[in-house]
Amino acid sequence: MKRQVFSLLVENTSGVLSRIAGLFTRRGYNIDSITAGVTADERYSRITVVVVEDEVVLEQIEKQLAKLEEVIDIKELKSGASVCRELVMIKVSVTPGTRQEIISIADIFKAKIMDVCSEALVIELTGNLDKVDALIKLLEPYGILELARTGATGLSRGTADVKML
Amino acid sequence: MKRQVFSLLVENTSGVLSRIAGLFTRRGYNIDSITAGVTADERYSRITVVVVEDEVVLEQIEKQLAKLEEVIDIKELKSGASVCRELVMIKVSVTPGTRQEIISIADIFKAKIMDVCSEALVIELTGNLDKVDALIKLLEPYGILELARTGATGLSRGTADVKML
Repeated sequence: MKRQVFSLLVENTSGVLSRIAGLFTRRGYNIDSITAGVTADERYSRITVVVVEDEVVLEQIEKQLAKLEEVIDIKELKSGASVCRELVMIKVSVTPGTRQEIISIADIFKAKIMDVCSEALVIELTGNLDKVDALIKLLEPYGILELARTGATGLSRGTADVKML
Repeated sequence: MKRQVFSLLVENTSGVLSRIAGLFTRRGYNIDSITAGVTADERYSRITVVVVEDEVVLEQIEKQLAKLEEVIDIKELKSGASVCRELVMIKVSVTPGTRQEIISIADIFKAKIMDVCSEALVIELTGNLDKVDALIKLLEPYGILELARTGATGLSRGTADVKML
């Protein structure tokens, strides 16, 4: 099994996400994460999909995605040749005794405290997958009340393969 | 027209994203952005959808989403009562003459430079929608080569409405 990050440049229409999600569902491929947002040119969106599958299956997925009419460009974001990041927000349970400990952990990760109340903190972190996972693991013993992660997004390094926005 | 952020706690199955995207497509609602990632409990995912529609339509969307079997919880993330953030990566064209200017702009926004080559910089920023839009607008005149944004994700403030992860 291999984790692969696909970066898709697609037409910004209401049907495109549904077609892509449908392709994964029909074939039973599970999406690890997905992010979709418009580019600087509103006619296009960029969708970043992370999938964990066998190499053979990943090749099939790439071919099938490339066949979709709305998909203008598809590339794999390989580690080293690209910069990938993820944003996570974690609401963690605190007590007067644990608050300072948790703030210290956030500081080490250069995470930001976004909200404080008597029973919880909301922590925001941007980083690669490993860093995000490491922070979640460290906070789990304190009690994670809510968690929202965007999934990875990224761009290739350099300008060799730039097609459009 | 109003911009509304829906935060959905859903079962982590391969079909859920497809059903949600399908609901928007069939009715012609356009998704401004979507992010989906697993929570700390792998049985569940959190999906954050941003939609710009009339109030009446937004109410319909909320009702229809709530009807889906896989949707465990749905809430609106209202500004003030929640913390919402977005991650954007921008590859901007540079020349020896403009590089320092662009780095100064990134510094003002507390954005990070993720990659440098002779013709481009990759800049990463986490912030609210307005901040992200402002940076994109400022960088546009230099030439944006590629852009990937996750779309908003967020959590409510406090602990009053915490259901699960």
